[in-house]
Amino acid sequence: MKINNKEWNDGAAHLLTFAIKKIWKDAELILSFSNEETFYCDFKFSNPVSQNDFKVIEKQMKKIVGGAYKLIHNGNNEIYNWELVDHINGQCDTNNSIANTNLLKNYKLLSLAGAYLNNDSSLEQVTRIHGVARANTQELNDFLNILKERKERDHRNIGKELGIFTFSPLSGKGFPIWLPNGFIVREEIKKFVTSKERKYNFTEVITPSLGSIDLYKTSGHWDHYKDDNYPIIELDKEQLMLRPMTCPHHCIIYKKSNHSYKDLPIRLSEHAKLYRYESSGSLSGLERVRAMVLTDAHIFARVDQIRDEFKHAYKLINECLEAFNIEIDYISLSLRDPEDKEKFYDDDEMWNKGEVLLEDLLKELKVNYKKMTGEAAFYGPKLDIQIKTALGREITVSTLQLDFLLPNKFELEYTNKDNVKERPVMIHRGLIGTYERFVATLLEQTKGALPLWLSPLQVQIIPVSRAESHLEYCQKIKAALKEDNIRADIDVREERLSYKMRQAQTKKIPIQLIIGDQEVESQTINYRLYQKTDSHVLNIQEFIQKMKKSINQKCPF
Amino acid sequence: MKINNKEWNDGAAHLLTFAIKKIWKDAELILSFSNEETFYCDFKFSNPVSQNDFKVIEKQMKKIVGGAYKLIHNGNNEIYNWELVDHINGQCDTNNSIANTNLLKNYKLLSLAGAYLNNDSSLEQVTRIHGVARANTQELNDFLNILKERKERDHRNIGKELGIFTFSPLSGKGFPIWLPNGFIVREEIKKFVTSKERKYNFTEVITPSLGSIDLYKTSGHWDHYKDDNYPIIELDKEQLMLRPMTCPHHCIIYKKSNHSYKDLPIRLSEHAKLYRYESSGSLSGLERVRAMVLTDAHIFARVDQIRDEFKHAYKLINECLEAFNIEIDYISLSLRDPEDKEKFYDDDEMWNKGEVLLEDLLKELKVNYKKMTGEAAFYGPKLDIQIKTALGREITVSTLQLDFLLPNKFELEYTNKDNVKERPVMIHRGLIGTYERFVATLLEQTKGALPLWLSPLQVQIIPVSRAESHLEYCQKIKAALKEDNIRADIDVREERLSYKMRQAQTKKIPIQLIIGDQEVESQTINYRLYQKTDSHVLNIQEFIQKMKKSINQKCPF
Repeated sequence: MKINNKEWNDGAAHLLTFAIKKIWKDAELILSFSNEETFYCDFKFSNPVSQNDFKVIEKQMKKIVGGAYKLIHNGNNEIYNWELVDHINGQCDTNNSIANTNLLKNYKLLSLAGAYLNNDSSLEQVTRIHGVARANTQELNDFLNILKERKERDHRNIGKELGIFTFSPLSGKGFPIWLPNGFIVREEIKKFVTSKERKYNFTEVITPSLGSIDLYKTSGHWDHYKDDNYPIIELDKEQLMLRPMTCPHHCIIYKKSNHSYKDLPIRLSEHAKLYRYESSGSLSGLERVRAMVLTDAHIFARVDQIRDEFKHAYKLINECLEAFNIEIDYISLSLRDPEDKEKFYDDDEMWNKGEVLLEDLLKELKVNYKKMTGEAAFYGPKLDIQIKTALGREITVSTLQLDFLLPNKFELEYTNKDNVKERPVMIHRGLIGTYERFVATLLEQTKGALPLWLSPLQVQIIPVSRAESHLEYCQKIKAALKEDNIRADIDVREERLSYKMRQAQTKKIPIQLIIGDQEVESQTINYRLYQKTDSHVLNIQEFIQKMKKSINQKCPF
Repeated sequence: MKINNKEWNDGAAHLLTFAIKKIWKDAELILSFSNEETFYCDFKFSNPVSQNDFKVIEKQMKKIVGGAYKLIHNGNNEIYNWELVDHINGQCDTNNSIANTNLLKNYKLLSLAGAYLNNDSSLEQVTRIHGVARANTQELNDFLNILKERKERDHRNIGKELGIFTFSPLSGKGFPIWLPNGFIVREEIKKFVTSKERKYNFTEVITPSLGSIDLYKTSGHWDHYKDDNYPIIELDKEQLMLRPMTCPHHCIIYKKSNHSYKDLPIRLSEHAKLYRYESSGSLSGLERVRAMVLTDAHIFARVDQIRDEFKHAYKLINECLEAFNIEIDYISLSLRDPEDKEKFYDDDEMWNKGEVLLEDLLKELKVNYKKMTGEAAFYGPKLDIQIKTALGREITVSTLQLDFLLPNKFELEYTNKDNVKERPVMIHRGLIGTYERFVATLLEQTKGALPLWLSPLQVQIIPVSRAESHLEYCQKIKAALKEDNIRADIDVREERLSYKMRQAQTKKIPIQLIIGDQEVESQTINYRLYQKTDSHVLNIQEFIQKMKKSINQKCPF
């Protein structure tokens, strides 16, 4: 008889409720929930209960187990239910008990907090107690370690601790506010990514964050993405919408001028603000937002250029991800389901050609890929670049999508060698996805200890004392670093040296400089790297050169 | 008897109508308009009329003048009206004629185009003939020269010719689309301006383009700027609005953490996307748009820091404008009207203190300023930095506004030396205004011949022939320039050398390189500056060094 994790959690929720009612007679259970990971129970208490009460509650839970609990079989080989029998008072919450058990010993209460029923702030407030149960101590401890790891890597916690981002109901749910440190991280990413795009001959544009309804009716987005769209905004007689994607705007630009076959490919890139509606319940930190900036681009090319353009863009993606130490897990080659004429634009010749071409390319590139039949976009086959996050989730970070359809819808043209009009193809290119999710991924990956080039504060200068000579020399170092665009700050607070050094560790600052009499005298600096205990001495110029090398080459100091 | 320009225009409009009706019997005058500058008449014709007919029309107008026209006096010393008498047919459009005149000789028809009545596209379409009249040939020619100058400096024409920006009804009226060349200009401005902001210790943030209605009710913008606001967007139960300004968002950030007196001033800057409603009739190129990016900042300071912060920010503004060769005309010191307790927040002590402080500062800075009583903002006195555009219009390019009110509304606080909560003041800082209007001003000022550092294409490389050796060497030069982030392109078209050189002039490219046998052999380059006829020889490295110096120091090549 194998009891699964959800059942252990079910049982513990049951047990918790029973214990709570024994301690606080008038406590009322509003809702109980469990899944394979954890459980929670929502209570109404007449007097305040806090995490300080966990000891008492857990003691009571322990007291109940050992005969008082039964594992019952509900007439189905695969479903088990927990039922309670109270030895002392003879209470039992069901009649059909089958087997006593005292197996339910490995549980832990995790947290207690105010919550809204169904997470809906218009419903009543309850006290939510979270917990977890497992079959044995080993499994429980393993899972507690996973929770610890998750908490350490939770980009929402890190983002708050490091002053990266915040949210406010006053500026709307799901709209991130990027704080000074977050701005720097974003800006460094942007500087790097756009320099790569320029190297790969992408041309940047800025298009409006709104589009007319007619634009999205032409593109087909109006019908296809209705549920994700923002409400219509009426200005004079115009009907506008905050845009969910950039492609129609880039088609407008393409169409503004005449193109010869010699002008193609035209690669328009834009780090574009997009708006997609998400229900308030599904919003989560930077991972799920209602406004985002996508590292977007559209390549307008001739059919004979498709292969080279995919290769070119794939190289760009690869070069960018490498710099962030992000490893591509595999490439999903998303194909149509040839049977499904509804879900996929009906043009077998175009599909066959495109699909074969992309697979050939993947073989040439010798990359790990998986064919995913039925996963293509409506308008064509695509390559999704898949990565595994530090917590083991699989996400698409970059994408390259072939599109024969949009050029049709917008009637895009170029003049070929024989002076005849032809239709170009479009390739949608997502480089590092959105800044929002990319930063979330980086924070998770690094636990907030960002590499030197990305770190908001790169150098914490700590004077050994508040002596004039120490402070002056610190100022001199800071000025020299600023001259070379190195982000440094002096901790001038009236605190102990050891406290300041610990704080620099807590804030995950890559380098701390300890400046005392010796450094002032020899005009050197004494540096110590994050999470390292040994220190090194260099003169300022040597130090700056080493810094610049690490920053420019994006390698360890 | 002095006839003013509007009256000359009135007369010519009258004359034009009379002439038109003589030529096309069934032509119908729909509307006639004139001001001190020009006039126009909207007609309905039953057969197509074009600018080719101007000769015939002007001939007819000439024929009518000389006895057929009267200048009449309407019983008021300052108003004159034109009336028509047709000698041939004995027609007269009024009875009370006073004096014949044949003075109306100096006029010119300027343009003919389809137009909508009242510029409203839902009303009927008419044929609009534009013209101008003046008292004498000299004045007419002077004004025609002004028109020529205006056309040459019209940022809408320049923007189109140089591929800076465009608009599309599909992406909404008043929302500029920045084309590749426009992106570069914007980006160069941004890079420069933000580097200065960093030098002056401003800290950058990114806040959402939307805010909740509650936010604007708290700030007071909801009531004060109703007509300029965009319609409400409802998401779930939230009521949001595309934001007209950044200050409330920056107050949210300030309020997110606790501040000590030692932390102030806090200078938050953001090049922020803003949305302000303008009627479709008032939209004009980049000058009047519905979405704009403002070089905005807010300084949170103690009262004792106000003077230094104004000085600090004024220095920043000055340094930025200088780099663009923009001269400050004067500073408008906008004060309250002490009698008006409605228009200005009622706190005499605060006003007196602020006003005296700002005037003292202006005296110290020894700048040209004008006191403008009653021109202050509701919340405090301000300094508006006024410039004269190349076409002589006066505009506010930068602004520094003292605000005692918003910190009250958002209940902003810091802890003073005695550990007591105090309220900071806010200073609103507009650096170079919006990118949209700033670029319009620059294009007008330079006629599109942007300085080297701002020019989208900096170097046009022109091979003398299509010989392999010429093209190869051109490629080598281009690669060397790109290495140093210099924007260069090769004109590989099969056109004559002289044509390519003329084209580079037309496109206002700062530098052209002419590459022929001699240059290939000696491995040098031969360059020629925009609007110059003499050419010079340098080796590539010398040329690049000269380029870099001009670009970095923002000085002529």
